[in-house]
Amino acid sequence: MFKKILIANRGEIALRVIRTCKEMGIKTVAVYSTADKESLHVRFADEAVCIGPAPSSESYLDITRIISAAEITNADAIHPGYGFLSENAEFSRVCEENDIKFIGASAEMINGMGDKANAKDTMKKAGVPTIPGSDGILDTVEEGLGLAEQVGYPIILKATAGGGGRGMRIVNEPGGFQKAWDDAKRESGAAFGNDGLYLEKFIEEPRHVEIQILGDSSGKAIHLSERDCSIQRRHQKLLEECPSPAVNEDLRQRMGEAAVRAAEAVKYEGAGTVEFLVDKHRDFYFMEMNTRIQVEHPVTEMVTDTDLIKDQIKMAAGELLDGKNLTPKRWSIECRINAEDPANDFRPSPGKITSLHFPGGRGVRVDSHVYAGYTIPPNYDSMIAKLIVTARTRDRAIIRTKRALQEFFIEGIKTTIPFHLKLMDDAQFQSGDFTTKFLEDFDFDALKEPKA
Amino acid sequence: MFKKILIANRGEIALRVIRTCKEMGIKTVAVYSTADKESLHVRFADEAVCIGPAPSSESYLDITRIISAAEITNADAIHPGYGFLSENAEFSRVCEENDIKFIGASAEMINGMGDKANAKDTMKKAGVPTIPGSDGILDTVEEGLGLAEQVGYPIILKATAGGGGRGMRIVNEPGGFQKAWDDAKRESGAAFGNDGLYLEKFIEEPRHVEIQILGDSSGKAIHLSERDCSIQRRHQKLLEECPSPAVNEDLRQRMGEAAVRAAEAVKYEGAGTVEFLVDKHRDFYFMEMNTRIQVEHPVTEMVTDTDLIKDQIKMAAGELLDGKNLTPKRWSIECRINAEDPANDFRPSPGKITSLHFPGGRGVRVDSHVYAGYTIPPNYDSMIAKLIVTARTRDRAIIRTKRALQEFFIEGIKTTIPFHLKLMDDAQFQSGDFTTKFLEDFDFDALKEPKA
Repeated sequence: MFKKILIANRGEIALRVIRTCKEMGIKTVAVYSTADKESLHVRFADEAVCIGPAPSSESYLDITRIISAAEITNADAIHPGYGFLSENAEFSRVCEENDIKFIGASAEMINGMGDKANAKDTMKKAGVPTIPGSDGILDTVEEGLGLAEQVGYPIILKATAGGGGRGMRIVNEPGGFQKAWDDAKRESGAAFGNDGLYLEKFIEEPRHVEIQILGDSSGKAIHLSERDCSIQRRHQKLLEECPSPAVNEDLRQRMGEAAVRAAEAVKYEGAGTVEFLVDKHRDFYFMEMNTRIQVEHPVTEMVTDTDLIKDQIKMAAGELLDGKNLTPKRWSIECRINAEDPANDFRPSPGKITSLHFPGGRGVRVDSHVYAGYTIPPNYDSMIAKLIVTARTRDRAIIRTKRALQEFFIEGIKTTIPFHLKLMDDAQFQSGDFTTKFLEDFDFDALKEPKA
Repeated sequence: MFKKILIANRGEIALRVIRTCKEMGIKTVAVYSTADKESLHVRFADEAVCIGPAPSSESYLDITRIISAAEITNADAIHPGYGFLSENAEFSRVCEENDIKFIGASAEMINGMGDKANAKDTMKKAGVPTIPGSDGILDTVEEGLGLAEQVGYPIILKATAGGGGRGMRIVNEPGGFQKAWDDAKRESGAAFGNDGLYLEKFIEEPRHVEIQILGDSSGKAIHLSERDCSIQRRHQKLLEECPSPAVNEDLRQRMGEAAVRAAEAVKYEGAGTVEFLVDKHRDFYFMEMNTRIQVEHPVTEMVTDTDLIKDQIKMAAGELLDGKNLTPKRWSIECRINAEDPANDFRPSPGKITSLHFPGGRGVRVDSHVYAGYTIPPNYDSMIAKLIVTARTRDRAIIRTKRALQEFFIEGIKTTIPFHLKLMDDAQFQSGDFTTKFLEDFDFDALKEPKA
């Protein structure tokens, strides 16, 4: 087992890794920028090395400085957390070259999964469902019509050079194809100077459901059930839960098996996540694979009685899996508490926390690096705490989350707590019946005068 | 079910009750003294009523004021917490007279169990083992010798008027009886002007092990396994755990059955605790019954997946038990974090908390009413937080408790954290093999320059 792990990250995830290392008897090294010298990860690690000024590019993203810090402190492994260098193939490679174990995926794996087209191909070959569609640009409208017939309506036409919804058209039946084709071509030509179109099956009422997997060096993988991350605003996850209200035992088994197949096909080592879109027919389609620990990993831990960071470290040290696939025993919800003003377009709200109280009691876990008197630097992402609430059922988890949010007070900055409180009272959220589009119609303006 | 519950208490237990009420959809009323107006229980309750000045006798112990607060706010039940009026028979009776449900024992039950001799008699009749000994004062040394033969050596002679260890003698075999008798008589005569002696079996290597029970209005009771509270200093519990390292499945079953027998014999309603001494032969003896929720109830909750406050409320509302006896699924340890200086005879250390960070992460629960900037009033007990740590095994729970204690920082006052940290490193504590005398030989002086 490793003797000393350097944590190439900051914030709550740095603390999270330190906690598990302490429980495993492994020494820890924190690295920090000058903006973070008052941070708890610096205080709680056995050693701490300043690696540069506030901008990430000169500290948390600076591979040379981090490797130097590991060498100075004799760390035999590096945990990258999430974000920053966690999916940086070069960092993984440089660690390996320096005989420091990178607790994450190999450079090849990161590159292979980072290239979306390549990842999709790999998954297809492994028998994992992917979104059907054209292989690249369609030459003629007839080709498109034929393919649409094959994958089934509705389909979506997308500009190959596109983005931001421009050059995109949904087609519900063959009669509408020609007009959509012409409109999308004209629009993308005007917008991007490139009117190439490709076609995909349109996923109706999509939910973002991801499967947590673990793989060992023998090529064996298991899954730890799903997480539902459909509560997103502009592709930013705000709340995650495990299990998913949209997943029944049959679907869990099918998705789990597909994710394990995917992991074993690429001989995945460590903790990873296979992201799927699930449609209203309970069909699912591969989106991408994340070769790192996810922000939302604690909800899985709380319902499967696992420590995913510990599992990551054990896999990296060459231990083999001794378990089977795990299914959820409880219901767990994670609210991301961000220093952002949800009543004003989630504008970042860095600054000094003048007063703070974390909720407590049964079923409440808080993963956070902040404290009263702490000043949130403007340089990094705005998440300041994860509130993870667990109960026997989803209904009870929602009630308990509301109770915990009501107890959570932070003064001096704006946070997403009022948003989460409103969400807990939302009938559609409570029903469990919502898609990734849910927040598009959410009444954020009602938060203008928050009570909490 | 009750619509509104008044909580006749303060501190963490008031918060604890509010949490469960919120989760049950029951409104809450806090009462507070002027010393507690900045307390969180005041902030988190739906309503709050000031009931007087700082001294408990004029606020938290003032039955009339509390009943008035309940009447003003239309509360239909009162939860007394622990301490204060929780085992006050008159308060229970006055609540009943005012048609306010007292969430606790009836006046008769409190009186019956509060009178130790009466309680012992009741238990004896119910077939619960009690410490064998004389019925009151012994007339002659021959009578004592005969009785000692009957209950088995070692025995202890105690002054009927005694206290503080004076007039007490342990006798290991018949040859030592006469001298011990003479010495104890002389000493108690001189100290108390009364040389009456009584005799009890001497409990060798005693551990304090208590059984959590729940009883309903039909007369049925269940037990939720044991808690070990042997880590005491001058009869003050400092750390509790569930299960007990001294209890195996056979002993758990025997003690549990005895406790259920005890509860059913008196038709006990609500949550209660039957305290036993367990000796080195794994024999156990009734000490007393507590007719209230205990400070240490969370360790039971964490290993049996229960909410004891919810159970109390449900029993008080007349719901019947639907469960069976529960056995521990995990291991949970509670550290009492007191505002006391363990390096200086546990001298109280009230004052302002200038900086505060609670530990978090997996398996860590903090029940506390304090926050950074909070001033601990000198008027009440000094417990400021309960750190409850749960893991799969005792070894892991100890490691995790140490990790959590290292993360726990409170500045501005002295706390018992350094004591608990030292305890976690103590080989005898780690072995699980200790008695209620353990802390008598503990090296508290080593805490004079605490690192934490």
